[in-house]
Amino acid sequence: MTQASTTTTELAPERVDMEAERLVRIGLSRVIEPGDPAALSAFQDLDVIEAWQRLRSGAAGMERWSARVAEVDPERDLERARSAGARFVIPGDDEWPAQVEVLADAGQQSRQGGVPFGLWVRGAANLRQVLERSVAIVGARACSSYGEHAAAELAAGMADNDVTVVSGGAYGIDAAAHRGAMAGSGVTVAVLACGVDVCYPKSNTALFDRIAEEGLLVSELPPACSPTKLRFLARNRLIAAATTGTIVVEAAVRSGALNTAGWAEQCGRPVLAVPGPITSRMSEGVHLLVRERNAVLVTSVADILEAISPMGHRLTPYPHAPAEPTDGLDLELRRTLDAVPVLRPAAADRIATTAGLDVDTVRECLETLEQADLVEYLETGWRLSPNHRRALGGP
Amino acid sequence: MTQASTTTTELAPERVDMEAERLVRIGLSRVIEPGDPAALSAFQDLDVIEAWQRLRSGAAGMERWSARVAEVDPERDLERARSAGARFVIPGDDEWPAQVEVLADAGQQSRQGGVPFGLWVRGAANLRQVLERSVAIVGARACSSYGEHAAAELAAGMADNDVTVVSGGAYGIDAAAHRGAMAGSGVTVAVLACGVDVCYPKSNTALFDRIAEEGLLVSELPPACSPTKLRFLARNRLIAAATTGTIVVEAAVRSGALNTAGWAEQCGRPVLAVPGPITSRMSEGVHLLVRERNAVLVTSVADILEAISPMGHRLTPYPHAPAEPTDGLDLELRRTLDAVPVLRPAAADRIATTAGLDVDTVRECLETLEQADLVEYLETGWRLSPNHRRALGGP
Repeated sequence: MTQASTTTTELAPERVDMEAERLVRIGLSRVIEPGDPAALSAFQDLDVIEAWQRLRSGAAGMERWSARVAEVDPERDLERARSAGARFVIPGDDEWPAQVEVLADAGQQSRQGGVPFGLWVRGAANLRQVLERSVAIVGARACSSYGEHAAAELAAGMADNDVTVVSGGAYGIDAAAHRGAMAGSGVTVAVLACGVDVCYPKSNTALFDRIAEEGLLVSELPPACSPTKLRFLARNRLIAAATTGTIVVEAAVRSGALNTAGWAEQCGRPVLAVPGPITSRMSEGVHLLVRERNAVLVTSVADILEAISPMGHRLTPYPHAPAEPTDGLDLELRRTLDAVPVLRPAAADRIATTAGLDVDTVRECLETLEQADLVEYLETGWRLSPNHRRALGGP
Repeated sequence: MTQASTTTTELAPERVDMEAERLVRIGLSRVIEPGDPAALSAFQDLDVIEAWQRLRSGAAGMERWSARVAEVDPERDLERARSAGARFVIPGDDEWPAQVEVLADAGQQSRQGGVPFGLWVRGAANLRQVLERSVAIVGARACSSYGEHAAAELAAGMADNDVTVVSGGAYGIDAAAHRGAMAGSGVTVAVLACGVDVCYPKSNTALFDRIAEEGLLVSELPPACSPTKLRFLARNRLIAAATTGTIVVEAAVRSGALNTAGWAEQCGRPVLAVPGPITSRMSEGVHLLVRERNAVLVTSVADILEAISPMGHRLTPYPHAPAEPTDGLDLELRRTLDAVPVLRPAAADRIATTAGLDVDTVRECLETLEQADLVEYLETGWRLSPNHRRALGGP
């Protein structure tokens, strides 16, 4: 069939190829576990079509996959996804977030690297566009109320700045981040370790429905798949690769969030750490990231925007401290002021002795201080002005 | 008088010189404010004897000090100190902590640098020895109960490791640090911005008495001197210079503790920062030190010991996480275990399909997992062992 013979009601040949490839990729995602190192090494020099042919050939080395290959039915998966309001996005689609291809190089084989064959997406937004300005906010499931509060506040701040919040849909920090983003009327993306039509954990059902409505549910696992420990770990690599940076809010020393942080490092994305009390086990892993792994300490929305923005943009303003009336006084003025009694007036020469300054200097200083309403002159000498006494919290 | 003519009841000539110099240094410390930049520049090329002669000569440029010079009476200061149980330690004394001489170079003129003329010391311990292994623990007066707790715990930990805790005797973090050190039966040193016989703040009287009993009160200001704002700032340079490192526990953005941290930087001593919740204003200054001034984040006694010890010594052990029964399982074992049902047994080929592994591999894995008491075999197939179900918190 030549290009000239294509009619408007038919798909162009490259589209036909692409839809064929889509079915192959669905098959692959059904058969091969996310980031399976055995598959990465068995198929490393093949394109997806060749890999699929190899899998179906029953050739030597393919035994481990044979039972799954026999069960594959991509059309049924697509139909099932459609009825759950989901689609399968692959490289070449407008929605494909090409930044996840960093995973082709990131991670050693033992660490479940690899680019996903495609992404199942549930929700109306365009995945690529939504992830263009995005951060991951991840952390402990058994978080403290401080951690929950911090995650929600920072996520709302991201939403206010049109940054998409990506997380894993788990209890604790993840759920707080998703909720915070939506409270800030922002878009949020949950990357799951199960099918986008599966709700795990069950009690987050209402949250997942709301995310599908206002944001996106994403997974590399086909519909109906259940989560496993290894799928959670493989999922973490996607969260890190899809976003501009990974923020960790509360993580014990042994926490999945540190695994996500490790993936962010391998993908060349900044790891941002939100500190907490040293008395909280839930902050131990976060402090470890700062101490041992050079994570960037962040304490505010401004800090985060600075860390994920191109070098030199959006620099955090130096924290603003309230001005004090004595700001800007030079050393002699400050020393004179220090020597002026609060209530019982003293003469200039007495003040000069106390201040360790000569009396002429002190007289000049006292006049300047009087103009600034910091001291007042009474018949018997100098003392602090009523205003300055009040500012100091005195009588 | 030659050395040969010295009798045992007389002081050796070098001692006579030293006692004369001591009186001169007392006079200087009475006349010149701590770290006064005008004095630093007026006397920079003179030794203390020459400086004292210059001051008493009434020469041009000496006017600012003339009123104070007229009032100097070193013998009376010594007597007053003695009756308060205090002494005046100067360079050349066995007790002199030579590390404070770093202040000769640290700090610009406007920042009140300079080595103290001597140190008034109240308490039985040897100042030099006590400061040999020492850290400063400083922070906000208006601290939170978290900060107070953290300061006391870290100070007690320092005491347990024979490290002297140095602070400023103020409310809040300072007081908590002194108390924590003494609770740990350690030595603590309060460096004051007033005479060592003056109690400021008044309500810390009992604390000061206890420090004088068990540790040391130290000041460069002569007896009876009151504190002033500038004296507090000058005092901070001594705390930083006398210790191996400065730990900041809670500090608002505008806090004297950050001034002490600045002096530590200028003295080439490490600044250590104890993080806190991002929701607490009292931790803002501390986080700023980490973000903007490269302070070392510390969360434990071990962290502190590592930071103040010579390079490579006392490395903090990587935090210990509780072992899990699945630690050390390779990827195939973990994947098989993930695929084993919790309660309803499944056959090996079903588990192989779920795991995405060939059935022979899975059979081998199941045997290994059975030996580790992670799975059990029933007539109808494999499921998790009762022990592992319990470990997972399941039924």
